Amino acid sequence: MAEAGRPPQARVLLQQCLHAKLQVRPAEGDVEAQWVEVPTALVIYVCFFKGAEEDLLPKMVSTLLNVKLSEAENGKRVSILDLPGNILIIPQATLGGRVRGRNMQYHTNSGKEEGLALYSQFVTLCEKELAANSKCAEAGMVVRHGTYGNRQVLKLDTNGPYTHLIEF
Amino acid sequence: MAEAGRPPQARVLLQQCLHAKLQVRPAEGDVEAQWVEVPTALVIYVCFFKGAEEDLLPKMVSTLLNVKLSEAENGKRVSILDLPGNILIIPQATLGGRVRGRNMQYHTNSGKEEGLALYSQFVTLCEKELAANSKCAEAGMVVRHGTYGNRQVLKLDTNGPYTHLIEF
Repeated sequence: MAEAGRPPQARVLLQQCLHAKLQVRPAEGDVEAQWVEVPTALVIYVCFFKGAEEDLLPKMVSTLLNVKLSEAENGKRVSILDLPGNILIIPQATLGGRVRGRNMQYHTNSGKEEGLALYSQFVTLCEKELAANSKCAEAGMVVRHGTYGNRQVLKLDTNGPYTHLIEF
Repeated sequence: MAEAGRPPQARVLLQQCLHAKLQVRPAEGDVEAQWVEVPTALVIYVCFFKGAEEDLLPKMVSTLLNVKLSEAENGKRVSILDLPGNILIIPQATLGGRVRGRNMQYHTNSGKEEGLALYSQFVTLCEKELAANSKCAEAGMVVRHGTYGNRQVLKLDTNGPYTHLIEF
C-alpha cells in the first residue's frame, strides 16, 4: 500500500485468532495485572514511523477492516467487519526495527508522544468503524487494545495465524 | 538486511514465546492431530519469494540465530543461541501477500516445490547450527517446525511477542 519511492509511514502485522488475552496493566504490589480478552478476532500489531501523519489513519483503518483475511464458517475469507469479528490492537514499536550487526535499531520509529497520539487515534477510528457497522454492532463485537508503551504480554490461540504484513 | 534496490528474497517474522504448540498433522478420521511443543523459544515465521536462492540460507540462519532479541533472566536481550532457547519454525507463505483492493495477492511468492526445498534446507541449517552450539546442545534445546503447505494451527504464550521483521 505504501507508495513506491518513499519510506512507509506505518507498518502493520495482522494475525487471526480464535481467542486472545492481552495484558493492559502489569501487576503492581498487591494489585493484580489487568487483561483484556477477545474471542475470534483480527489481531492488529501496529508501528508508526517518523513522519507519519494523521491523515494516513482513515485509509489504514479502512484497508485493515475491509481486507478479506478472516475465515468464515464456509471456509471463505471475508473482512473482519463481514465476519463479523472482534479486533485486538497491539502497539508494537519493535516492528520498526532494523538489523545492525547483532542488534536491532529503531531510528526510524516515530517519537513516543507522536506515536502515542497516532496510536490513540487509530484505536478510536477502529472503534468508530466497528460501531458504525450494523453487522458488528448487532453481534456485539468489540475493539480491545494494548496500553501504548507497556510490555504486550499476549496469549494467542489460533486456527492458523495467517500472518500478513501491510505497510502504509 | 535486503540489499537496497532489489526486491527481497525472503521475509521473516520473529516473535518470542514462553511456550508454543503447533499442529504438524491435522486429525484424519480416527487419528488425532499431531502437535509439536516448545517452552521458551524464538518463533521464526518464514516466507520465500520468487528468485530466492540456496546461498541465501546460511546468512539468514546466522543472522536470525545471532541477533539479540531473546530476553535473558537479567532482562538483557541476547541471541537465542546465547539464551539458550528453542526454535520453532513456521512456514508462512501469507507473509508474502500484497493488498490489491480488498484481497491479498501472492504473485511474488516462490513456487511450491522451490519454496519447500528452501524451507527444508532452512530447517536443516537451523538444526545444525543449534546442535553445533555447545550451550544449546548441553541445555537440550531443540528445533521444531511446521509442515510446509499445511495449516499452521498455533497456540502462543508470550511475555511480550516483541515482534520483529527482517527481510533478506
